[in-house]
Amino acid sequence: MTQAVNVALIGCGVVGTGTARILLEHAERLTRRAGRAIALKRVVVRNADKLRDGVSASLIATDIEAAVHDPTIDVVVELIGGTTTARRVVLDSLAAGKHVVTANKALLAEHGPELFEAARKAGRVVCFEAAVAGGVPIIRALAESLAANQVTAIQGILNGTSNFILTAMTDAGLSYEAALKEAQRLGYAEADPTLDVDGSDAAHKLAVLAQIAFGVTAKPRDIEKQGIDGIDAMDIRFADELGYTIKLLAEAWTQGDKVALHVAPVLLRHTDMLAQVRGAYNAIQLVGDVVGETLYQGPGAGMMPTASSVVSDLIDIAVGRAQATFAAAKLWSAEDRGGYVIAPSEKVRSRFYLRLIVRDQPGVLADVCRLLAEEGISISSVIQHEAIPADSAALPLVIMTHAAETGRFRRAVRAVDRLPSLAAAAVHYSVDD
Amino acid sequence: MTQAVNVALIGCGVVGTGTARILLEHAERLTRRAGRAIALKRVVVRNADKLRDGVSASLIATDIEAAVHDPTIDVVVELIGGTTTARRVVLDSLAAGKHVVTANKALLAEHGPELFEAARKAGRVVCFEAAVAGGVPIIRALAESLAANQVTAIQGILNGTSNFILTAMTDAGLSYEAALKEAQRLGYAEADPTLDVDGSDAAHKLAVLAQIAFGVTAKPRDIEKQGIDGIDAMDIRFADELGYTIKLLAEAWTQGDKVALHVAPVLLRHTDMLAQVRGAYNAIQLVGDVVGETLYQGPGAGMMPTASSVVSDLIDIAVGRAQATFAAAKLWSAEDRGGYVIAPSEKVRSRFYLRLIVRDQPGVLADVCRLLAEEGISISSVIQHEAIPADSAALPLVIMTHAAETGRFRRAVRAVDRLPSLAAAAVHYSVDD
Repeated sequence: MTQAVNVALIGCGVVGTGTARILLEHAERLTRRAGRAIALKRVVVRNADKLRDGVSASLIATDIEAAVHDPTIDVVVELIGGTTTARRVVLDSLAAGKHVVTANKALLAEHGPELFEAARKAGRVVCFEAAVAGGVPIIRALAESLAANQVTAIQGILNGTSNFILTAMTDAGLSYEAALKEAQRLGYAEADPTLDVDGSDAAHKLAVLAQIAFGVTAKPRDIEKQGIDGIDAMDIRFADELGYTIKLLAEAWTQGDKVALHVAPVLLRHTDMLAQVRGAYNAIQLVGDVVGETLYQGPGAGMMPTASSVVSDLIDIAVGRAQATFAAAKLWSAEDRGGYVIAPSEKVRSRFYLRLIVRDQPGVLADVCRLLAEEGISISSVIQHEAIPADSAALPLVIMTHAAETGRFRRAVRAVDRLPSLAAAAVHYSVDD
Repeated sequence: MTQAVNVALIGCGVVGTGTARILLEHAERLTRRAGRAIALKRVVVRNADKLRDGVSASLIATDIEAAVHDPTIDVVVELIGGTTTARRVVLDSLAAGKHVVTANKALLAEHGPELFEAARKAGRVVCFEAAVAGGVPIIRALAESLAANQVTAIQGILNGTSNFILTAMTDAGLSYEAALKEAQRLGYAEADPTLDVDGSDAAHKLAVLAQIAFGVTAKPRDIEKQGIDGIDAMDIRFADELGYTIKLLAEAWTQGDKVALHVAPVLLRHTDMLAQVRGAYNAIQLVGDVVGETLYQGPGAGMMPTASSVVSDLIDIAVGRAQATFAAAKLWSAEDRGGYVIAPSEKVRSRFYLRLIVRDQPGVLADVCRLLAEEGISISSVIQHEAIPADSAALPLVIMTHAAETGRFRRAVRAVDRLPSLAAAAVHYSVDD
């Protein structure tokens, strides 16, 4: 048998502990699958005194440098998160001749070109199945399974926290605040949930997927994003009445040689597969020009699902598959991989949901319709809801449009927002039919 | 650049034509993805005079032997189907030093051990992503993405024809016969649909998945199967009223070191992701002991989706990934890959749907309940439906049981079937909650 692959884990939080457990508890299985042992040699942590479930104290160390430069280590698994120390660890590991496995989407989204160039120079690989959608093998699907295709669209539920909150609001009729509290109580949301609920986390993941699918290096700031923070229970309910479920989607579409990327709440038909994805699950729909629509779903986070993806990367390295993929994929390289350029979403055509709170006075609807018409937007349906509360002088007015250019729709909304009859700023989401 | 990979297609029906089209129309893309050209050198057909959409006449040949022994060919793609000539083509190709790509599940299910032994001896690979679930990359998911896991359950909608028919019966209230006619009219069912609707096709595919997931070599005859042929619209409707959708599922469960395999119509809750899979789509849910539940969905058949999978295998061979996977996976070998043995479904516990047509006379329900109780089966609900037609003296009686051992439930049903008050044989399906 070929010699063992020796692994150092840098960081032993939730995913690190899960990874260590798989390596230690299923060593025999992994040897069988990889044709050689995958041996956990060192677990580097900040606080060596903290107990780690199932990880023997003899493996624990605190010196990152020593682990990265240990000549017996073949693969460094970076699980510390953040983009400062993590970047250093990855660059040093590659320079020291180690392969790297990481679950760090922010690091890839911010420093992909530098890290992958360093890997190519060192003749080593960077694997990152765990960086997007936890236990869902979406990286392999894009990079390998759909290799005969040009992907033309990606729609993903990539943030489990947001999906949990939206599901709780939809199913239990909770307010945003109550649903967030419930998510925090159950461990699906952090004390500071900002990066999850404002769309940042999903945007990082979309940047990684867009690199594989389109060869574009999207900095997180290139990705338009709108989160679910403060989403109104009223809109969840109105959408439901119209036959739609609101989901936070990370989306990419191609049009010619352009690709638009964004993260936003979107109305999906109840029957859409993505609309059915509940709780903390993630799911991604990929459209390929040859295969058509394919969908991948699973646990988007959590100790063992994410660790499952980390260990699948270690097996790929042990088998030699990762090296073949890395050389062929040319990720974050200067190589032209399809000629796509990132374009703003302005030209993307979509239907829209527009919800206004208007003062109950004559002519409001006429004004709104006129402003939409001036941008060439036609209306598919209008529902005037009862006042909330019932004695209020302001009424919710919901308008569904036919397909229109995003830019023109936004311009119309800006004009609508200036109407004196509006009691609150317009709320609008795109509608996917 | 490394030299081209030269490909011979044997068989140019629907999938062959799709494969040729991708290779010819997207040559530049494939070269980019594989790091070398994938060149279609020969297309072997029975009738050289038949026109093939987009395939130049200069590529067409009729001599299989010549193609298989052509020293310039690197990969033979077997797409003729059946298990006689196809087996010969694969064995001869391997012996001649060619890699093989096939979409032939029947061939793998019947002759897997012989073919894979021959491949190992020749130092070549057999790839077969297209053999199960068309465009859904389920082979890679099982063999690579979930490699850190022991899969503990598989539930798959693996036959698009059956799923199309069941969807049409459910949505449009069609009879089995009318839904089959519609499927034939739209090209989703063949003139003789037997192998699709009797569960044989799904059983072949399940045998292939079971080999990867459990290391068991299940001959199709080892797999209990019940198809959808003749399924009664009444049962679709009754299931719907109870909150369930009937799907033809190929299933595998492990219990200790045993694995039970079967194909049968199953009642799934409307909210189950597999229940939402409509029309000719395929979907597979895999449960891994580390990752939990993951789901894969896409077009299960058709020219371009299946060809997409064939070409992804060609790219894997060109990149060298297929060779790494093949060596590590040890499929259809004597190697112990988990110690599983195939067990009959008798011990599998499940809830059951039991529908009887009983003569409208006192004591029938008491008799049925007693016979179920004698096998230790408790009843969760009973619904006595109106007579069909309304003036008939026979009434449908639907019983949902609590979880029971399959063997004991079947024994009870045999006893029920002997009751003189039964107007027709009992119909029963398992229920997945």
